[in-house]
Amino acid sequence: MKLHGYFRSSAAYRVRIALNLKGLSADHLPHHLRKGEQRDPAYLAINPQGLVPTLQHDGGAILTQSLAIIEWLDETHPEPPLLPADPLRRAKVRAFAMVVACDTHPVQNLKVLARLRELGLPDEQVTGWAAWANREGLSACETLIANERGPFCFGAAATMADLCLVPQLANARRFGVDVAAFPRLLKAEAAARDLKAFADAAPDRQPDAE
Amino acid sequence: MKLHGYFRSSAAYRVRIALNLKGLSADHLPHHLRKGEQRDPAYLAINPQGLVPTLQHDGGAILTQSLAIIEWLDETHPEPPLLPADPLRRAKVRAFAMVVACDTHPVQNLKVLARLRELGLPDEQVTGWAAWANREGLSACETLIANERGPFCFGAAATMADLCLVPQLANARRFGVDVAAFPRLLKAEAAARDLKAFADAAPDRQPDAE
Repeated sequence: MKLHGYFRSSAAYRVRIALNLKGLSADHLPHHLRKGEQRDPAYLAINPQGLVPTLQHDGGAILTQSLAIIEWLDETHPEPPLLPADPLRRAKVRAFAMVVACDTHPVQNLKVLARLRELGLPDEQVTGWAAWANREGLSACETLIANERGPFCFGAAATMADLCLVPQLANARRFGVDVAAFPRLLKAEAAARDLKAFADAAPDRQPDAE
Repeated sequence: MKLHGYFRSSAAYRVRIALNLKGLSADHLPHHLRKGEQRDPAYLAINPQGLVPTLQHDGGAILTQSLAIIEWLDETHPEPPLLPADPLRRAKVRAFAMVVACDTHPVQNLKVLARLRELGLPDEQVTGWAAWANREGLSACETLIANERGPFCFGAAATMADLCLVPQLANARRFGVDVAAFPRLLKAEAAARDLKAFADAAPDRQPDAE
């Protein structure tokens, strides 16, 4: 398999963790988002959004959207599971993941921040926007798992929720958010940090890291 | 079941279609988003994001995030299926749905547009932003299903992709996007329009429609 990504993309980071947890390897093909390499016509032909990640299966199949890729990995390589067995618990895990993947990350991704700059907002306001999006999303996440014992977001093992949380906390710090306000999230992050699958997927461990 | 929603919320609209397709009924509890009713403490206690929809099950369970609710509905009420059986096809459908639910709608929702106004952008630029987000997302969607025969997004029956597409096209028109640029999407929309489940879920058919 080939994984098109970028070391700092939190969406690609989620998929890297998932591959590692499943014990799967992939060739990593970096696209430098700040240099616009994701808008290369050859890449747009496989991912018309010009976003990362994209997973190219050896059979030729092309998968886009990090959560769709992770659901596919979980369906085709069930161990260890990234979602609980009970439908209601699955819904809770997916909802947490989507607070991050739908309502937080896309509001602060590179494309949106670039658009804000084009509209004339100064850098300070653009960074403030990104911090706001992260605070709003992570505050909701903190409440969603306040009564979950953990240590991971939902129980004793990592789920799709943790795959979304850890990269988003990295983004939040990068935009200057005081993450100490989210003790339950930090507890889950600490549990994840002890796993090699998470450590090996970190941005600074990627070949294209700057 | 109770569905907390708002007639014009495209995320609530997705869930209304899903309930109708599954033949399930729910009490509809509207929250007037433009009047800020979703920030009422009683509502925040069940949905800490202050977003709609929220599905309250008679057993007391609370489900948030439209796609997580739709996955739960599909797992607990399998007929008719909202996802194909084949994992790769499921991934394609989910990816399309997420282009809408992750990268399009959250970038143009009420909360984000209100924030743009707070930052001093004039109404014209705010509407332009919403139109841009819709054009970017729907252009990618058009390409993703260009080679799908249809008439729905993926095959002869509605899937999660159509549940996301139809409400998003309504948003796009509201923001002045020329949707004639997306003939394949309009073909899928026309197929959906023939189904009562879609028609009954339309914003103008809801009790809180203005």
